[in-house]
Amino acid sequence: MQLDDYQQLYKNNLLDDVIPFWLKHSGDNEFGGFFTCLDREGSVYDTDKFVWLQGRQVWCFSMLYNRVEKKQEWLDFAIQGAEFLKKHGRDAEGNWYFSLTREGLPLTQPFNIFSDCFAAMAFGQLYKATGNSEYGDIAVSTFHAILRRQENPKGPYNKAYPGTRPLKSFALPMILCNLVLEMESLLPPELVEQTIASGIHAVMDEFYRPDLGLILENIAPDGSFSDSFEGRLINPGHGLEAMWFIMDLAERSNDQQLIQKAVDRTLAILEYGWDNQYGGIFYFLDVKGTPPQQLEWDQKLWWVHIETIISLLKGYLHTGDERCWTWFEKVHAYTWAHFVDTEYGEWFGYLDRRGDVLLPLKGGKWKGCFHIPRGLYQCWKTLDAIAHKKANPLLQD
Amino acid sequence: MQLDDYQQLYKNNLLDDVIPFWLKHSGDNEFGGFFTCLDREGSVYDTDKFVWLQGRQVWCFSMLYNRVEKKQEWLDFAIQGAEFLKKHGRDAEGNWYFSLTREGLPLTQPFNIFSDCFAAMAFGQLYKATGNSEYGDIAVSTFHAILRRQENPKGPYNKAYPGTRPLKSFALPMILCNLVLEMESLLPPELVEQTIASGIHAVMDEFYRPDLGLILENIAPDGSFSDSFEGRLINPGHGLEAMWFIMDLAERSNDQQLIQKAVDRTLAILEYGWDNQYGGIFYFLDVKGTPPQQLEWDQKLWWVHIETIISLLKGYLHTGDERCWTWFEKVHAYTWAHFVDTEYGEWFGYLDRRGDVLLPLKGGKWKGCFHIPRGLYQCWKTLDAIAHKKANPLLQD
Repeated sequence: MQLDDYQQLYKNNLLDDVIPFWLKHSGDNEFGGFFTCLDREGSVYDTDKFVWLQGRQVWCFSMLYNRVEKKQEWLDFAIQGAEFLKKHGRDAEGNWYFSLTREGLPLTQPFNIFSDCFAAMAFGQLYKATGNSEYGDIAVSTFHAILRRQENPKGPYNKAYPGTRPLKSFALPMILCNLVLEMESLLPPELVEQTIASGIHAVMDEFYRPDLGLILENIAPDGSFSDSFEGRLINPGHGLEAMWFIMDLAERSNDQQLIQKAVDRTLAILEYGWDNQYGGIFYFLDVKGTPPQQLEWDQKLWWVHIETIISLLKGYLHTGDERCWTWFEKVHAYTWAHFVDTEYGEWFGYLDRRGDVLLPLKGGKWKGCFHIPRGLYQCWKTLDAIAHKKANPLLQD
Repeated sequence: MQLDDYQQLYKNNLLDDVIPFWLKHSGDNEFGGFFTCLDREGSVYDTDKFVWLQGRQVWCFSMLYNRVEKKQEWLDFAIQGAEFLKKHGRDAEGNWYFSLTREGLPLTQPFNIFSDCFAAMAFGQLYKATGNSEYGDIAVSTFHAILRRQENPKGPYNKAYPGTRPLKSFALPMILCNLVLEMESLLPPELVEQTIASGIHAVMDEFYRPDLGLILENIAPDGSFSDSFEGRLINPGHGLEAMWFIMDLAERSNDQQLIQKAVDRTLAILEYGWDNQYGGIFYFLDVKGTPPQQLEWDQKLWWVHIETIISLLKGYLHTGDERCWTWFEKVHAYTWAHFVDTEYGEWFGYLDRRGDVLLPLKGGKWKGCFHIPRGLYQCWKTLDAIAHKKANPLLQD
């Protein structure tokens, strides 16, 4: 395949397949919000509403409206989801529930801070689309609540006995690296700079082990290795996704050295996480090679693969490193051969180690309208930029 | 294989392989208690101590001492585990922590009532072995605490929003059916009878769906079906294990009708849960055939298979139903071909759908010295009883 084939493929899959799939199947015209539990053909098999996925879908359609085309249908879809969230999503303190019934009654308490992260992302992007200050206010107050909760995100639902083995987790600092750029126009510049600096420090220094070339999922508060199930855990997809967040931050400050670091680490994590026997990237690994707790460790997940492709393409765009393109072609081939459903549209989410479909769903409790469309958009635009650069050799770094 | 081959196999695997494996590898001579995270060869790969597994191993060695042979080594092993638990296992209110460090510091809060169930089982069985009233008191007070907590077992760690979708879970009433017999000599007879009656009612009536011939894992408080991820969940292994608990209760009250019911349901659940493509019993299924939440749904787990074999053999012993023996031979063949590690001893715990080893551990956070030795003991004794009955035709019902 040539560069322009890839450009067309990512763009067309986004605009002619994935987005129409969600527009057609996921809107709840009766109660508002989105159904995300969709089977292979798009039929709703469960009506619960997970705040992660409600927020992510509001973000997705707002982002398409802001960046691709001012389609009223996209904006209306985002607004009806946001109105559902605004009305039903929060407790009295403004914390976001984890899940709601179809009608909007709270089902699961606000134990999970990522509900708040994706709500902030949603309302921030929708504010850009509408200029509606109510949406902006929800985004900003949620962002501040996240910063306040970040030292003990699970609050009273934290089951760890205090003090015995405190651990810091990679996921929140990683998400903040992306969220802060989403929210930039709504936040004071010094808070933006400070959040970016501490995010880069966490991702590139604190959780990174130079001796391994890998990012750990959990570390002790002083940064040391915890020889425990949590401490030994590697989530290659998390590290790989974080590397394009870092490249975006580095691009913003024109830090070519940081981009090169992120590229090197992308390649190191990918080489470590790739399944040489069956192809694809493992979901979880144990850094000491001992058995991980996660029974799903050897499965191949949609988000891991599309996020990896983004990092490889951005790495190639910014550095021209041929290893990025070679790996891109390899991960692309695996991904399009196994995840993309050419019969009913959209992508499968969960494959077994051998690449066979494990669950034939298009959406569920964790897979919604987010990683695939965001990734397709990012890849399409990055491929365009690569083509533009190749056509204009003077732009080469 | 002939009946006496099976008798020998189950007995020898217990006494010459599995028990020596745990005696050799799992004792912590420095801090007391047991290591349960053992790799294929028996080496310790993690030193955390999970209260479920500490209690279960104390129970196992006490049970062997009480029922197989008065070996001092077995009793000493149980006592050192119990002393570790007694010293470190409980919070100030007597609730059992979920996990401890190697040294005995609390790691995870007492959110999981099954820690208490297996502690009660451990101290009850050890009381029988030693007559030490301190052990008996711990068992009894823990049992009463379980009954007090049974309506809201997770206490403050329950993340469900109160009232929106209350659900009752099968696991606790099921475990109580077994625990009450373990504790019988320590409890007032009326409490025993009452616990048995409500346990049988829960397992055979409340959670059982006559239209499906299956047991649901979660139901609404009024017994109705909840069309949600939790409500649609079938855990075939739970249902299959519960059926021999019911047969034991029915044998105690000489209720042949109840035994026949339990046998019929064993066969129905097994036919539903059996993987016709690759063999073995699925871990989780969705009763409506929609995608379950559990990514590990298609895996084959050690405890599911040994517990099924117990129910089939007890069913055959009590009813002579040839379907039980036919299924026993089929499940036995799968189990011994895939789970038993003839090279390093003990059994693998986790296989993928195709029957290949998914995690090469012999023990971990959830697999310890319990289901395999208990099952081997139960099968050995049940096979002996079958042989005895065959040799004495007048004993036939």
